[in-house]
Amino acid sequence: MPRYFMTLEYDGGPFCGWQRQNNGVAVQALIEAAVEALCGEAQSVMAAGRTDAGVHARGQVAHVDLPRAYPVTTVRNALNQHLRPYPIAVLEATEVDDALHARFSATARHYRYRICNRRPPLALAQGRAWHVAAALDAERMHEAGQALVGQHDFSSFRATECQAKSPVRTLDRLVVRRRGEEIDVSASARSFLHHQVRNIVGTLALVGKGDWSIDGVAEALHAERRAAAGPTAPAAGLYLDRVDYDGSGFSRPPVG
Amino acid sequence: MPRYFMTLEYDGGPFCGWQRQNNGVAVQALIEAAVEALCGEAQSVMAAGRTDAGVHARGQVAHVDLPRAYPVTTVRNALNQHLRPYPIAVLEATEVDDALHARFSATARHYRYRICNRRPPLALAQGRAWHVAAALDAERMHEAGQALVGQHDFSSFRATECQAKSPVRTLDRLVVRRRGEEIDVSASARSFLHHQVRNIVGTLALVGKGDWSIDGVAEALHAERRAAAGPTAPAAGLYLDRVDYDGSGFSRPPVG
Repeated sequence: MPRYFMTLEYDGGPFCGWQRQNNGVAVQALIEAAVEALCGEAQSVMAAGRTDAGVHARGQVAHVDLPRAYPVTTVRNALNQHLRPYPIAVLEATEVDDALHARFSATARHYRYRICNRRPPLALAQGRAWHVAAALDAERMHEAGQALVGQHDFSSFRATECQAKSPVRTLDRLVVRRRGEEIDVSASARSFLHHQVRNIVGTLALVGKGDWSIDGVAEALHAERRAAAGPTAPAAGLYLDRVDYDGSGFSRPPVG
Repeated sequence: MPRYFMTLEYDGGPFCGWQRQNNGVAVQALIEAAVEALCGEAQSVMAAGRTDAGVHARGQVAHVDLPRAYPVTTVRNALNQHLRPYPIAVLEATEVDDALHARFSATARHYRYRICNRRPPLALAQGRAWHVAAALDAERMHEAGQALVGQHDFSSFRATECQAKSPVRTLDRLVVRRRGEEIDVSASARSFLHHQVRNIVGTLALVGKGDWSIDGVAEALHAERRAAAGPTAPAAGLYLDRVDYDGSGFSRPPVG
């Protein structure tokens, strides 16, 4: 059966996340329903990142095996037609070698976290950013975050319900940048622990407000227990921007 | 009675527009209710731009006279508290001379129109941009639009229900710029006719698609009748970005 990679954009707000749960509609379920409408057979769809409820995607990647070959534009357009009632779009479909797995073959995941740092509440960015009213020093946040780059035991930044076997991950890049009232936190790694980006952002915000010293982040990391780090930043600010598959022939230009 | 200027951000999606209509909730009505909750008296609120249903604002300006003086942060924070259920935010409040009128004293209005030009439907930008699937040439659109800059009779780009006495307006600036899949059209003038920006954008899109020649826009302008120009672009792509009051002591930094 030919395998297709799909690049997906979605607004995570209305959904219980990528994966099926007991408490809402999953992005995965809607895409699987669209696949069944296209080819007449139920097929499971696997994603690179199992985004949580409320988390958005600008470049999620998922794969599906179809019972027969279709032109890639037919796959994209037909799925979009079936997904029309929902804020989910297939940006691109590509036929790939069936040795390539959207989750296990990914070599890098790029997340972006969007903070809107101003006193007035959000009107246009409601549900699309974390509103932080207290003044944040983005340069301090960036400096503090550099202690997290590299291979570490990230137990302090891992959700208690995280199911990964090891708490060790390699954070390749962490950049905090202010543009006007917006602060973007970009994080790249081969893979992340559950809530890792949101727990990092929640902790960096404490540094940005001046409640924590810059060294506090390194200390929290070395404590290797969740309670040592800051709170989990809200889901609404998080975007899965891009997934890389090195040497696979599947590529997607950087977003933004 | 002291007069306050308010800079406003709102998502136009849920509203029937700035002004009261028979078919929905008006932004003006919600702000007037918040003002009454703050000071205990009904006061009318006047805006620089009477945005239509679905049109957004990043820097609308409105004025209100309050029965007594309040610190400007109290005005801003109290109104935001009362507006909390709605996607409307007071970004800033300033006390101004009562000779200054939000609508009649404005010396420039800056609108931005956002097009998302790609084949796949919109997920994250639903209700926030005009989705145009056909490829648009933004440089051609920009070139064609320059025929509209200056003082002209804009009858061809004016809604049939427009109530302005004269169809003559001076368009100070029209810039069409592509950034990736987004095309932004920025338009500045002392004042605009009803639907003028949306009618210009709908016409430029015809040029961008190649359906119209570049000269077609100048020809439509000189025809001085609505039927000679293109269709009205959807409300969801339009943002009132900023309003200027030269020499008034009221200023607001450029947005974006």
